[in-house]
Amino acid sequence: MRQFVVVGHDAPTTPDFSLDDLAGAAGRLDVLCRCVNSAFFLSHDIRTDVRAHLVLADEYTVTFDGSDLRRLNPDERSTAALVRNALEEREEAIGHIPVETSPGVSLTRRGFEGTVEDVAARGTVVQLHEDGDPVVDADPPSNPVFVLSDHHDFEPNEADLLADYAEERVSLGPKALHADHAITVAHNYLDTEGFTQY
Amino acid sequence: MRQFVVVGHDAPTTPDFSLDDLAGAAGRLDVLCRCVNSAFFLSHDIRTDVRAHLVLADEYTVTFDGSDLRRLNPDERSTAALVRNALEEREEAIGHIPVETSPGVSLTRRGFEGTVEDVAARGTVVQLHEDGDPVVDADPPSNPVFVLSDHHDFEPNEADLLADYAEERVSLGPKALHADHAITVAHNYLDTEGFTQY
Repeated sequence: MRQFVVVGHDAPTTPDFSLDDLAGAAGRLDVLCRCVNSAFFLSHDIRTDVRAHLVLADEYTVTFDGSDLRRLNPDERSTAALVRNALEEREEAIGHIPVETSPGVSLTRRGFEGTVEDVAARGTVVQLHEDGDPVVDADPPSNPVFVLSDHHDFEPNEADLLADYAEERVSLGPKALHADHAITVAHNYLDTEGFTQY
Repeated sequence: MRQFVVVGHDAPTTPDFSLDDLAGAAGRLDVLCRCVNSAFFLSHDIRTDVRAHLVLADEYTVTFDGSDLRRLNPDERSTAALVRNALEEREEAIGHIPVETSPGVSLTRRGFEGTVEDVAARGTVVQLHEDGDPVVDADPPSNPVFVLSDHHDFEPNEADLLADYAEERVSLGPKALHADHAITVAHNYLDTEGFTQY
């Protein structure tokens, strides 16, 4: 399984935001929605062996599980509606027990550290870093976990935590990419790895 | 220069569409907006040496030129507003003379064939095809032009025209990708080509 954790530093933690202003008052939720798109969509297909975790302002995490996902569409607005729908049920998220808020989408009361700790237990955390090994030279783990940040850099405490958990550090190329583009490139390298036509 | 042509088969040709329903009544304009995002955005930067052409229902083409672009934001909605703004001035687009409708954005009364003919005169058309040569083995031209389709396949007449103009045929990998993801992957290969750290 491939997993992606995306940190939304300014993301909403209540459902009272407008779908008409995702890039503004909704704290750049558009960035997180594009990450979900990149994590799951293939042409006329969905990647079932993927999980994407959106960390909302270090308070909640919304998890999309490709094996159960329904009602996911590629546009930002409809994905944001799934996040808003998840936040409607935030009172039900008690402790670290996830609440399924729509098919394949669940909400957990857990911030960055709790989420990274959880995914690290089920896979190998790969840090994307400009000084890392070129991804083309790396031997990808069988269950990679990529941790990315929204339009802000990681906070120092987040970067430290990530460095502690990361078992590999790779670079996707010479240009710094948006998180959603990084997910697309990471998928492509994993897709083509060992592909005999390549 | 890198150029991308994206065909929007169901895209609007008048500005009377709602920004609240890009994936529905606006004919999947969300797909085209994500392609613009992938074509231009780097982390905290814009690719200036890029042009992206959105062909709207074979009637108009909206061109984004990275060297002059202003007011482009990553979210779908604000990019759709630039397209709508361009269509507001469609009466000014006479013959094949482009009308600049906002900084770096212009509208031309020209469909698929006219646009492909124009870009082919300034670059090398590369066809993305599942049976093409793996892009990692290809020697990219200095001014590549990638022609992509929205959520529909190319129409037979479009595919024939494209095959006539294409000088290379490459595959980006074993999985069929959405157009915006294909743009991201194409950029990454071109970015890393000959990059000494790679």
